[in-house]
Amino acid sequence: MPSSSSPSSPSFVKVVEVGPRDGLQNERVVPTAVKVALIDRLADAGLSVVEATSFVSPKWVPQMGDAPEVMARIRRRPGVSYPVLTPNLKGLEAAIAAGADEVAIFGAASESFSRRNINCSIAESIMRFAAVAERATAAGLRVRGYVSCIAGCPYEGRVDPAAVADVAKALLDLGCYEISLGDTIGVGRPREIRAVVDAVSRKVPVERLAMHCHDTYGQALANIHASLDCGIRTVDSSVAGLGGCPYAKGATGNVATEDVVYMLDGCGFDTGVDLHRLAETGQWISAELGRPTGSRVARALLAKQPPPS
Amino acid sequence: MPSSSSPSSPSFVKVVEVGPRDGLQNERVVPTAVKVALIDRLADAGLSVVEATSFVSPKWVPQMGDAPEVMARIRRRPGVSYPVLTPNLKGLEAAIAAGADEVAIFGAASESFSRRNINCSIAESIMRFAAVAERATAAGLRVRGYVSCIAGCPYEGRVDPAAVADVAKALLDLGCYEISLGDTIGVGRPREIRAVVDAVSRKVPVERLAMHCHDTYGQALANIHASLDCGIRTVDSSVAGLGGCPYAKGATGNVATEDVVYMLDGCGFDTGVDLHRLAETGQWISAELGRPTGSRVARALLAKQPPPS
Repeated sequence: MPSSSSPSSPSFVKVVEVGPRDGLQNERVVPTAVKVALIDRLADAGLSVVEATSFVSPKWVPQMGDAPEVMARIRRRPGVSYPVLTPNLKGLEAAIAAGADEVAIFGAASESFSRRNINCSIAESIMRFAAVAERATAAGLRVRGYVSCIAGCPYEGRVDPAAVADVAKALLDLGCYEISLGDTIGVGRPREIRAVVDAVSRKVPVERLAMHCHDTYGQALANIHASLDCGIRTVDSSVAGLGGCPYAKGATGNVATEDVVYMLDGCGFDTGVDLHRLAETGQWISAELGRPTGSRVARALLAKQPPPS
Repeated sequence: MPSSSSPSSPSFVKVVEVGPRDGLQNERVVPTAVKVALIDRLADAGLSVVEATSFVSPKWVPQMGDAPEVMARIRRRPGVSYPVLTPNLKGLEAAIAAGADEVAIFGAASESFSRRNINCSIAESIMRFAAVAERATAAGLRVRGYVSCIAGCPYEGRVDPAAVADVAKALLDLGCYEISLGDTIGVGRPREIRAVVDAVSRKVPVERLAMHCHDTYGQALANIHASLDCGIRTVDSSVAGLGGCPYAKGATGNVATEDVVYMLDGCGFDTGVDLHRLAETGQWISAELGRPTGSRVARALLAKQPPPS
């Protein structure tokens, strides 16, 4: 099934599955075996990138405390990348020891968010990431960069697209092969997202950009579609919308991979993802977590009945 | 607040609120006083069109059995239209007697759906509507037309955009001042919606078209945004997503007005709608119905807290 579409096709959109990391780090602690099964099932469904875990202090993120064990137990499917988050050199060394082939670093376009989220200024974070990126590259690992708060910050409100472009360019200059633009609090609307992508594209080739939308305000698919219009061909998403129960107060609201793939399928894009297998995986992990799926496509497919006769 | 935006402005998008009719006809029966308060509050929030009720047989739609009473009790706000659904001459006469100034007729782009929903072929439905439209126009009422199943039919699957265009043109020829294109089962994706709008626009001026999206598969805002790109400037939606609890099996899933207005606000369009008052109304009616809101914007606004200090 994944063989029918090729990343070299002009209609290919790469879907980066972030559920096991960006999703599960915001859910209750899940057994390692469940994480491993989730990652393997996602790769089997045709996803070519599955962000697997995060090498951070278990003091801060206990949900990711089993990162080395996860990496040891997943079945590495040929052609699939399993990036892991490494905020600092200590995390990077642990990731290298665990056999990671790709790491991700996480910057912000908002000073206040940077200070509160990673406890340093944007400039300081870039310096810190420079050491991580240099060491990772020397060790033969690919490095992915994230920019958070691209359309708004919980502390500062509006974020200037030029600030997003500056951080994205800095990450590119550090050697990141791809920069993911994250609307962390989901406040952006299509025109605003276009403005950000336009601003960033002037400093970073659009082929190197990914869109990472949260659906907190229901805008994620509209924003992703707008970014496709701007030439974006890489989209981050989370199976079943993991990482923010849409019914909970303060939900972070990752956009559901099922909903993204359904849209891409209908817009003439190839993803290599088998929607049916993906939706089954989303149902399974939702049941494991004891929560309803955050995917509307999954709910619709579940509700679908043969027409009344 | 509604005075700050004018329907004659090029950036004006008319939001047609369908919650009291398309929404409540798919919820449990609601007291007349609640319906009246809902309609009045929506008009007070700045909506210039509030579809109020349906003059259909209470045998088929008991939720709308109090249509004359609703029309008698609402406070008609100057400049606001209160269309009502009238599937046949009997309903139309009742609507005229109740003082309606605008009626709506409801056709389908799919033969199977037409037969199952209104028990006649598309051609027969147009003949039936001709009599309704003629009598309504003679009585000085405006007539709005709906075309359902524009992107897919629960019985036939894919629907040909040319078939949508034919029905839309037939409704135009009957004298409808506006034709609302409904993705009744919410299966369409942006490229498919664009294809439909393009096909219909060749037969009906785009200024006469409205987009009516259901969010069953989470595609509604992306589809509405795509239709705006095609020149559509009228959008139907339902406060709080009334008319299909998003958590229920078989949800019909009207797109929430709050989510539409939030997107339009951020895309440089004027709607005349006060999002805050609208969201309050959505919370109030959701509480009256004892169900969670279907609006993600409403949930996000509710969850919003001052940033941690």
